[in-house]
Amino acid sequence: MTYNVLIINGPNLNMLGMREPDIYGPQTLNDLNQFCIESAEDINMQVSCFQSNHEGELIEKIQTADESFDAIIINAAAYSHTSIALYDALKLCPLPFIEVHLSNIYARDAFRHKSLISPLAKGVLCGFGQIGYSLALTAIKDILVSRED
Amino acid sequence: MTYNVLIINGPNLNMLGMREPDIYGPQTLNDLNQFCIESAEDINMQVSCFQSNHEGELIEKIQTADESFDAIIINAAAYSHTSIALYDALKLCPLPFIEVHLSNIYARDAFRHKSLISPLAKGVLCGFGQIGYSLALTAIKDILVSRED
Amino acid sequence: MTYNVLIINGPNLNMLGMREPDIYGPQTLNDLNQFCIESAEDINMQVSCFQSNHEGELIEKIQTADESFDAIIINAAAYSHTSIALYDALKLCPLPFIEVHLSNIYARDAFRHKSLISPLAKGVLCGFGQIGYSLALTAIKDILVSRED
Amino acid sequence: MTYNVLIINGPNLNMLGMREPDIYGPQTLNDLNQFCIESAEDINMQVSCFQSNHEGELIEKIQTADESFDAIIINAAAYSHTSIALYDALKLCPLPFIEVHLSNIYARDAFRHKSLISPLAKGVLCGFGQIGYSLALTAIKDILVSRED
Amino acid sequence: MTYNVLIINGPNLNMLGMREPDIYGPQTLNDLNQFCIESAEDINMQVSCFQSNHEGELIEKIQTADESFDAIIINAAAYSHTSIALYDALKLCPLPFIEVHLSNIYARDAFRHKSLISPLAKGVLCGFGQIGYSLALTAIKDILVSRED
Amino acid sequence: MTYNVLIINGPNLNMLGMREPDIYGPQTLNDLNQFCIESAEDINMQVSCFQSNHEGELIEKIQTADESFDAIIINAAAYSHTSIALYDALKLCPLPFIEVHLSNIYARDAFRHKSLISPLAKGVLCGFGQIGYSLALTAIKDILVSRED
Amino acid sequence: MTYNVLIINGPNLNMLGMREPDIYGPQTLNDLNQFCIESAEDINMQVSCFQSNHEGELIEKIQTADESFDAIIINAAAYSHTSIALYDALKLCPLPFIEVHLSNIYARDAFRHKSLISPLAKGVLCGFGQIGYSLALTAIKDILVSRED
Amino acid sequence: MTYNVLIINGPNLNMLGMREPDIYGPQTLNDLNQFCIESAEDINMQVSCFQSNHEGELIEKIQTADESFDAIIINAAAYSHTSIALYDALKLCPLPFIEVHLSNIYARDAFRHKSLISPLAKGVLCGFGQIGYSLALTAIKDILVSRED
Amino acid sequence: MTYNVLIINGPNLNMLGMREPDIYGPQTLNDLNQFCIESAEDINMQVSCFQSNHEGELIEKIQTADESFDAIIINAAAYSHTSIALYDALKLCPLPFIEVHLSNIYARDAFRHKSLISPLAKGVLCGFGQIGYSLALTAIKDILVSRED
Amino acid sequence: MTYNVLIINGPNLNMLGMREPDIYGPQTLNDLNQFCIESAEDINMQVSCFQSNHEGELIEKIQTADESFDAIIINAAAYSHTSIALYDALKLCPLPFIEVHLSNIYARDAFRHKSLISPLAKGVLCGFGQIGYSLALTAIKDILVSRED
Amino acid sequence: MTYNVLIINGPNLNMLGMREPDIYGPQTLNDLNQFCIESAEDINMQVSCFQSNHEGELIEKIQTADESFDAIIINAAAYSHTSIALYDALKLCPLPFIEVHLSNIYARDAFRHKSLISPLAKGVLCGFGQIGYSLALTAIKDILVSRED
Amino acid sequence: MTYNVLIINGPNLNMLGMREPDIYGPQTLNDLNQFCIESAEDINMQVSCFQSNHEGELIEKIQTADESFDAIIINAAAYSHTSIALYDALKLCPLPFIEVHLSNIYARDAFRHKSLISPLAKGVLCGFGQIGYSLALTAIKDILVSRED
Repeated sequence: MTYNVLIINGPNLNMLGMREPDIYGPQTLNDLNQFCIESAEDINMQVSCFQSNHEGELIEKIQTADESFDAIIINAAAYSHTSIALYDALKLCPLPFIEVHLSNIYARDAFRHKSLISPLAKGVLCGFGQIGYSLALTAIKDILVSRED
Repeated sequence: MTYNVLIINGPNLNMLGMREPDIYGPQTLNDLNQFCIESAEDINMQVSCFQSNHEGELIEKIQTADESFDAIIINAAAYSHTSIALYDALKLCPLPFIEVHLSNIYARDAFRHKSLISPLAKGVLCGFGQIGYSLALTAIKDILVSRED
Repeated sequence: MTYNVLIINGPNLNMLGMREPDIYGPQTLNDLNQFCIESAEDINMQVSCFQSNHEGELIEKIQTADESFDAIIINAAAYSHTSIALYDALKLCPLPFIEVHLSNIYARDAFRHKSLISPLAKGVLCGFGQIGYSLALTAIKDILVSRED
Repeated sequence: MTYNVLIINGPNLNMLGMREPDIYGPQTLNDLNQFCIESAEDINMQVSCFQSNHEGELIEKIQTADESFDAIIINAAAYSHTSIALYDALKLCPLPFIEVHLSNIYARDAFRHKSLISPLAKGVLCGFGQIGYSLALTAIKDILVSRED
Repeated sequence: MTYNVLIINGPNLNMLGMREPDIYGPQTLNDLNQFCIESAEDINMQVSCFQSNHEGELIEKIQTADESFDAIIINAAAYSHTSIALYDALKLCPLPFIEVHLSNIYARDAFRHKSLISPLAKGVLCGFGQIGYSLALTAIKDILVSRED
Repeated sequence: MTYNVLIINGPNLNMLGMREPDIYGPQTLNDLNQFCIESAEDINMQVSCFQSNHEGELIEKIQTADESFDAIIINAAAYSHTSIALYDALKLCPLPFIEVHLSNIYARDAFRHKSLISPLAKGVLCGFGQIGYSLALTAIKDILVSRED
Repeated sequence: MTYNVLIINGPNLNMLGMREPDIYGPQTLNDLNQFCIESAEDINMQVSCFQSNHEGELIEKIQTADESFDAIIINAAAYSHTSIALYDALKLCPLPFIEVHLSNIYARDAFRHKSLISPLAKGVLCGFGQIGYSLALTAIKDILVSRED
Repeated sequence: MTYNVLIINGPNLNMLGMREPDIYGPQTLNDLNQFCIESAEDINMQVSCFQSNHEGELIEKIQTADESFDAIIINAAAYSHTSIALYDALKLCPLPFIEVHLSNIYARDAFRHKSLISPLAKGVLCGFGQIGYSLALTAIKDILVSRED
Repeated sequence: MTYNVLIINGPNLNMLGMREPDIYGPQTLNDLNQFCIESAEDINMQVSCFQSNHEGELIEKIQTADESFDAIIINAAAYSHTSIALYDALKLCPLPFIEVHLSNIYARDAFRHKSLISPLAKGVLCGFGQIGYSLALTAIKDILVSRED
Repeated sequence: MTYNVLIINGPNLNMLGMREPDIYGPQTLNDLNQFCIESAEDINMQVSCFQSNHEGELIEKIQTADESFDAIIINAAAYSHTSIALYDALKLCPLPFIEVHLSNIYARDAFRHKSLISPLAKGVLCGFGQIGYSLALTAIKDILVSRED
Repeated sequence: MTYNVLIINGPNLNMLGMREPDIYGPQTLNDLNQFCIESAEDINMQVSCFQSNHEGELIEKIQTADESFDAIIINAAAYSHTSIALYDALKLCPLPFIEVHLSNIYARDAFRHKSLISPLAKGVLCGFGQIGYSLALTAIKDILVSRED
Repeated sequence: MTYNVLIINGPNLNMLGMREPDIYGPQTLNDLNQFCIESAEDINMQVSCFQSNHEGELIEKIQTADESFDAIIINAAAYSHTSIALYDALKLCPLPFIEVHLSNIYARDAFRHKSLISPLAKGVLCGFGQIGYSLALTAIKDILVSRED
């Protein structure tokens, strides 16, 4: 069986590779999406990538995710730290999800140290750049497979 | 005279009845809207129901509410706790409004205990499920009638 | 069946109508009690009204309430914000209760924003003046009726 | 005209002179009351002295004070720091009042530094022992006389 | 010589055994009193048991305790966490006292973690159920005996 | 050379002149925009005015601003105090920007005293009403001209 | 014997009577000084009045006060809330002192609620206007006389 | 009519141009004063410049400012963050004033983020270097002119 | 059946009786151990005493305690207030344990008021000196016996 | 080239599989070590596993790690939240390291939410159980390989 | 070469030896100055001693210190804890400085535990009495000499 | 007489000179020890140097220090900020001690600003590098000599 994973990227991640390459690396969002698709294929999974700068759109993507997907990988960026609405959407969603951040949020501004959605996640990882997404794919597959048993 | 009341429901309330029925009950948003319409009719009022997951749309609905309505009943859900922009929209709006929450927010997560918009409300009620909306309708009618005197 | 509800009013509510009518309205406690009795009759319920300025008396009223009543409506006034003993009495009491405040406590002094007993209540409402008590009666009836089912 | 002043002493002040004379001096409550009566007579005023260890009794004394008195001098002792109910009673009372403490509360435990009722008082004085009450009588007379003008 | 110990139980402890037996056990206050009397007899002491839900009554019991007793064992329940007046009464009282709680207050609500009166106690114990009272009797006897030396 | 400046107004600023004229003055957003256009012309600059109530739209306007503009003047209104996403968009944007508020935010609610985006701004000004925008235009020109040197 | 008291007034008290008469009354500093001199004479004392807006001058006045005076009455105004240096000067000074404030500092801005020097004072009084100074003179005389015994 | 504006610079601003030119620019205080005089002339105003490192002198300059000036522009530097006495002086002063800071105080040490005097100002601006003073002159003229209407 | 109890004493308790006898009494650790052995024998129990100044050794003693013992009595001294690792070891350990402190920790430094391990204990007692250990033995026996039922 | 990675497990991790399998899974530390060795082999790396309950031993292992290893993977368990000494050891160590936690620390006790060492890590991951270690190995290899370039 | 060091003593240090000899010792400021001069001579340095109770004078002394001195030793006393202006003056000053306190400020009032100027100092020492100044001279010489290399 | 001083260095100080020479200088711990031995000889004292990374070993070294030494100089490094156990050991130790830090801890991470052991020290010094140890030796000799008098 092939699992289908929704990858959600939050505000300003459409700017990847265009600014601050020393923090986020030179890859664009397209590069990242391509990398995710290939990483998924390598372990026989499928991904669909979604990015939005709009809190409401992110919420609505999550609300309907269980119709088409088996799991979510989410980098909610700035909304991780401020959005209770996103927290509620993820809490209502029956899918397991993993939280990813490109940079090590504990080595940056104090207001990035606390992510509201972390307590709901199966696991959290940060600081690994785009590799973090492939690690998350490996992890989510492990979670989905062990559920089958 | 028949008063016209705008009922505003905030983020994730479109998911009512689909998840966590132990907290919010089995009714869907459609059920809730229908219940509000009937409750209003029972006391000779009219309601219009609006739901959005988008902070900006909620703000804009409030901005123009005084063109068509006499009062607002609002369940701003997660945005109650984070949105100063919503606070500003309600502060600018000349209509009286009542704040409603389906669940008892004081018996849930600490970050739900404080609603930014409460100080602006005529009254606040929480924990009554959908009945809370009909109580709010009764209360808002009382406020509107006494203004006429 | 006729439900019997205990209405408890806390410290200084015996002064209703005698001072600060702009905040609490012109009704005296007697007026409020009469209003509650009539509101109850309208929906085929019975109420008994009790007021005390003594924390200990309020506690003891609650301790024995389940011998004669089906539910409690309580406006604990200042003790809402300071009395863990009242919290304990309500926690031990098997009856459902609703918390009422005449004024919108979130629009007043900061020390009135947090009520210790709210997490134990079925529902909380504030800011509606004496109408709040009749709304609470309607709500408590709904709770009691649905328990029967 | 002779002004009539109610002097209210709160919890544990009935123990005056029996314990900790280094903090409160050797006078008993009777001595203090006698001192107040004489100090009042010296400036052509009348006082009535009341002490209680019961928050509810203190509240009720304040609630009816305006029927018989022109002003209040209050040493609410421990309740100064914890009782919002007392605050409410004093806020509802139309009489001017002065807050007195025998000891310098700022030189004692941190939990005695903040008195909830101070913002409502015409004036506050502490640290002067029983003389503080006669100073308060002088002050309250000044306030009452100037009101007549 | 037979020591005489006053056992004071605070608000809601008259409800013991009637509610929440999983937290406080099935014994009623009468059972507890009887247990204390017998435990005292076993070690040749006498106890007198007092319970009140009224802060003022507890204060006054403490104020006169040194006329008839050698020591106090007190479970001030909810007032432990809110009553500076009780603190003052115990501070003025020349008798040694031990603070007891039936349940482990550190394993319950955060607002029960701090007892205002603990710094004044000879010793504090909590979590042992009614056995805690007999432990306290043993301890207070040890304190009283060693004072004689 | 003529500099091109993007003027961004945040949530509820489309309501200018319609409510609370004592705080914000009688001008509408159109009046303000016209005023900005004219003020710019007076110093040989060009402006483009943008207003949105949607956090996501504001973010996206900023993300592409460097394609068409030399600098930004932003009044983020309520989002100034809550939006880390806006902070991130401005941090990624290579253009210099000035933060403007119509009213003196330090003389209003405590939750308006801290603007998240201020540390990123070239300069901040508040309290000057619409004149603040023309002052900002003068300032931004000074910054742009001195960069040329 | 005639006691000699130094009256110290801190920053902006030279402006008395010129601004905000609703808070501080219509008397000028000269009026206040004259009132103090006469109040002192009435009880057979002498006063010397000193005002400065300079923290350093106030400190130095206190440092040498014990060469010429028996006690100090001080209204340190704004420096009460910010000056540890003043605290140190008063701590080093062997004279007893009384702290006075014209207005009730607990009914004003939060930053005026805490006076650093209060713990060092014999007594504190506030809210009585200029009468406060004559009350302080009466109190300080009582302290000085009782020291003689 | 020509308006006369007092420009007040606080502690260490006499060192301008001598140290840390990367933060404050290369201009000396003389240069800044000259710039202010010329900027004022350009818009038909007059300025008088005053600098002091002494809190007391700054206070006294403000106390008498309304005898000779129509408005104040103040950069209180470090005293902005610590001086309640300065706050009081400005509160008593009937002139409108504008607060200026050369650097963006929100991009520097946390203890510079809060200015005590901001709530009293007509407007606040920071981060613009010496241009900030000419912007303030323009703004203050606008305020003074509109008062005439 | 004879229960076997492990008594663990933490850092610096090997210094008992050598310093600060006014706080901890004159007994040495050997005296305390001997007292515990005898107290246990009196109620037909066995104890083994262990002391270490090393957090790691205390952890490892707890990790293997259930191989040889029925319960633990622990005085973790300073580590009570700082060691989450000790908390984890006790949480993993299936044995019931009682927390003991020789002195009344609530009457000492503020940093001793909170013990991290208290929420995990069956009961907590402090302030009784070495008697506290024999009280704990009595209590733990009661717990073990009632488990058998 | 084969990279050599040191895997460090902190206090109580030697108890893995023996307690609380619902949180940490049924694997013992030996199982985990074996899993790490095999995971490393799969990607052509070598690991050495070290566990200690002693803060000092963990520190010393880190101090000499750069003599034999290319990188560190560390699960400091409870010491993550309390040990500045560990922080210092890792700060002095020139090797890149990754922080791992078996459970999602953000879904557990509040005192586990902050890890002192996170700001120093290349990346952090938690909540994935033993799979987390193999993800960390993959990540650290990626970091080491990209350094070669 | 002979280094020239400015020794600055802040408010109330002119009172040295006159009060509280148990805290500061019996030496007067003259004794301290003489001690510093001799200590400097012993290591071939020169000192100039300055004391002021005026924040402004201390600031101005620092502002011009680099014209005549090689380094500063400063005991800013109470201003250490409150003066950002002093911080700014020291930050602008290019000379190295050492902070000295006669008493151990960490063993005194909590408001003395934090010195604002410490982060700018080369080194800080406290608790050594007047010897602290000679230690500082030795240290500052070491710093100056090593700069020459 | 020759005084014997124990010099204790805490965790990670065995790494001196091997890492971060810009903060701690190029000297190794051996260099520092040698420097201390020579500095002591210069003033006719003897030192014994001890370093450990283990909290328990540091505690035990302090516990027995008074058998062989006259005083302690301690640089507890990271444990200064976290170890109450070390505080207790030093409190129980009858020897005077001086606290030393190589770097200026107030110019580093916020979690290094507070040392738990400072209130117990005779004096504290930081920021002077290895010279700080010789200053401490001079100071401790002064303390020991003056005790002899």
